[in-house]
Amino acid sequence: MPQDYASQFGIENIPFGVASSSTRAIQCVTRIGNHVIFLAELAKIGAFKNIDGGQDLARIFLEKTLNSYAALPKSTHQQARTAIQAAYKSGLTSDATEDISSVKLHVPVQVGDFTDFSASADHVQNAGEAIFGVRSFPPAFFNYPVAYAGRSSSIVVSGTPVPRPWGQFPEDMSVPPEKRNVVFAPCRNLDYELEVGAVIGRPVKPGTKLYAKDADEHVFGLVLVNDWSARDIQAFEMNPLGPFNSKNFATTVSPWIITLEALKTFEVPAPQRQRPVAEFLDDPKGVNYAIDLQAEIVRKGVRTTTCTVGFQTMYWTIRHMLAHHTIGGCGLRTGDLIAGGTVSGEADHEHGCLLELTKNGKVASKLSDGSDLRFLEDEDTVVLTGIVGGAESGIGFGECLGVVKPAAV
Amino acid sequence: MPQDYASQFGIENIPFGVASSSTRAIQCVTRIGNHVIFLAELAKIGAFKNIDGGQDLARIFLEKTLNSYAALPKSTHQQARTAIQAAYKSGLTSDATEDISSVKLHVPVQVGDFTDFSASADHVQNAGEAIFGVRSFPPAFFNYPVAYAGRSSSIVVSGTPVPRPWGQFPEDMSVPPEKRNVVFAPCRNLDYELEVGAVIGRPVKPGTKLYAKDADEHVFGLVLVNDWSARDIQAFEMNPLGPFNSKNFATTVSPWIITLEALKTFEVPAPQRQRPVAEFLDDPKGVNYAIDLQAEIVRKGVRTTTCTVGFQTMYWTIRHMLAHHTIGGCGLRTGDLIAGGTVSGEADHEHGCLLELTKNGKVASKLSDGSDLRFLEDEDTVVLTGIVGGAESGIGFGECLGVVKPAAV
Repeated sequence: MPQDYASQFGIENIPFGVASSSTRAIQCVTRIGNHVIFLAELAKIGAFKNIDGGQDLARIFLEKTLNSYAALPKSTHQQARTAIQAAYKSGLTSDATEDISSVKLHVPVQVGDFTDFSASADHVQNAGEAIFGVRSFPPAFFNYPVAYAGRSSSIVVSGTPVPRPWGQFPEDMSVPPEKRNVVFAPCRNLDYELEVGAVIGRPVKPGTKLYAKDADEHVFGLVLVNDWSARDIQAFEMNPLGPFNSKNFATTVSPWIITLEALKTFEVPAPQRQRPVAEFLDDPKGVNYAIDLQAEIVRKGVRTTTCTVGFQTMYWTIRHMLAHHTIGGCGLRTGDLIAGGTVSGEADHEHGCLLELTKNGKVASKLSDGSDLRFLEDEDTVVLTGIVGGAESGIGFGECLGVVKPAAV
Repeated sequence: MPQDYASQFGIENIPFGVASSSTRAIQCVTRIGNHVIFLAELAKIGAFKNIDGGQDLARIFLEKTLNSYAALPKSTHQQARTAIQAAYKSGLTSDATEDISSVKLHVPVQVGDFTDFSASADHVQNAGEAIFGVRSFPPAFFNYPVAYAGRSSSIVVSGTPVPRPWGQFPEDMSVPPEKRNVVFAPCRNLDYELEVGAVIGRPVKPGTKLYAKDADEHVFGLVLVNDWSARDIQAFEMNPLGPFNSKNFATTVSPWIITLEALKTFEVPAPQRQRPVAEFLDDPKGVNYAIDLQAEIVRKGVRTTTCTVGFQTMYWTIRHMLAHHTIGGCGLRTGDLIAGGTVSGEADHEHGCLLELTKNGKVASKLSDGSDLRFLEDEDTVVLTGIVGGAESGIGFGECLGVVKPAAV
């Protein structure tokens, strides 16, 4: 049942992606409705001739990733966006266009490093309750957004099949450590995580003291992220170094980067700080984005919505994440992916992963046909979507989709 | 007091690096004694004309990283090594040579992802004792080597200054969490970690079930690694996602990659398994390498050896690390860096970091001049070295050096 997301790609969206087709090599594109527009061809017919640096765009848009474009100044991004909208309205784009059904979409940037934060206050409490039976916060939670480094080589674009990972884990984590029977087997507790990630545009030089309030300058745009998680492998490996094999087998991203320019209108306040923060994290505007996120599972043809939650619930914002990430001296490169971790709210329909929804598999949730859901089964499809500012905005992410495949033999 | 490492670069070494000089752009080199040999020039005069794929080497050695060369088959590496040795003996290298003092060395590969394991049984026990007063193992320690993903963008070559990182940490971790005064300040407990890392040659395709016994095929060679660690920042952030800002500000690598071909003669057995392992980790040969590692601190002109330890003490080998890393489906790319974590032994002189040596700063160690050592001070120089198979072998890593600089203002 393919979805038609044309209405999410109105003329106020102008997302950026990378596509190829039977007649065009992999290169940079945008999308309006179901029209995928090859931007180097727009450049060749002069659509960008009046903007700063416009003469370089024909070359830059022919590249296989958006990195060079993302690194350009915000002023160029704003002017290019306006120029694309004008070209579309004037009918200039027709020769540079293919239908969405004719193109193949790719990971839009070369990701140098992938970082995943844990920025949702509800997620950390829900996850703690599911695993340990106690709602609590990590020690540093109110001082800064905690994070781990992920695996950049395992980032795949929406639609890429995700084989179930093998790993070692105790058959029963509830028995005492010395009595645990550790097996090497395909993961039994496979999960998704509903996330939003920021793609770095202008790099942050190592040693910069970036303040949260100044961080937008370095964000090219946002994507949806599914940080697939093997909960049994994870429970065994987490102490003391954090997640590794439980996460590094695959991370799926949506193909379209929704720019901060498109999101500007939909800025909303972040939740109030519950404790004072260090000056570099102080951000009186406290900006989140109004994004209605949804997770669905399709099992044996039955589609079930497992989560609907607003991105604006996130305690720590993307600005906070960039500031904390870099304050110790770490640089950020164009194309780096900074995800915010599972997005969850307080209510039962706001659990952004199955660990929360099913209390780590202990309490079955129900699919639309009444059958039990605990963790992901082979051939389950997970579909993440995000609509910005309501259905009338014409702005959304399309989908971030993955089908679970049987573990390798 | 510059060291002369010429004796470590005998004709049996033939390491690979990347260098530039006043007359030569950055490109691939080897070193014999104090002669740095520019390999593309050797290729041009026909030194590699009789080896498989030799015709491509003039181009490959002109590249700015060793990635393309590292990805070539082991048979090509073996033949190129022999050809370089023959060319040197015949005096063919003289026009392609500059003295080590005339060149600048660079990070030898483009690192896609950096992973750091914790493979030393003594290190995890010593570190646990230093922090918690208890010698114990992580839950999964005997099932597989535990690891975390590091920061690839912060990898710097030996000699690069390392500014002290800023961060947030409690002034006293020993008081109860609710009473802790969390400050934002330059790290007070800065440490080094004496490590060895493997550079991936032939990539491992995602989804490959790589067995430990077959993993050597994917290792191009080894480097020394200093995984600089901010212990105060680390103690606060570790729970539950592992190290992040405490490590991501800088990781120093030595400039010369010592190939597995050079190390072959110095294979030694790994420690006996204390518990049975999964089949994919089973490696009857259990190969480690006989490398005498040393850490030194130079403070105000006073040089003190803080650690001497053998790499052969590592419980988990590089083969085990590669197998565990990939068994869940994660691929490895050419140039990826897989470090083994702090190398430590049982004895007091075998502590590969100050956390262990000074019991997390609680018990001062002594410098050569009798003064106290707890953690690193500004302008301290940390020098890591490694000699393979004893001083007579003519094979070593040179140095992995970093000077601590004051925190940014």
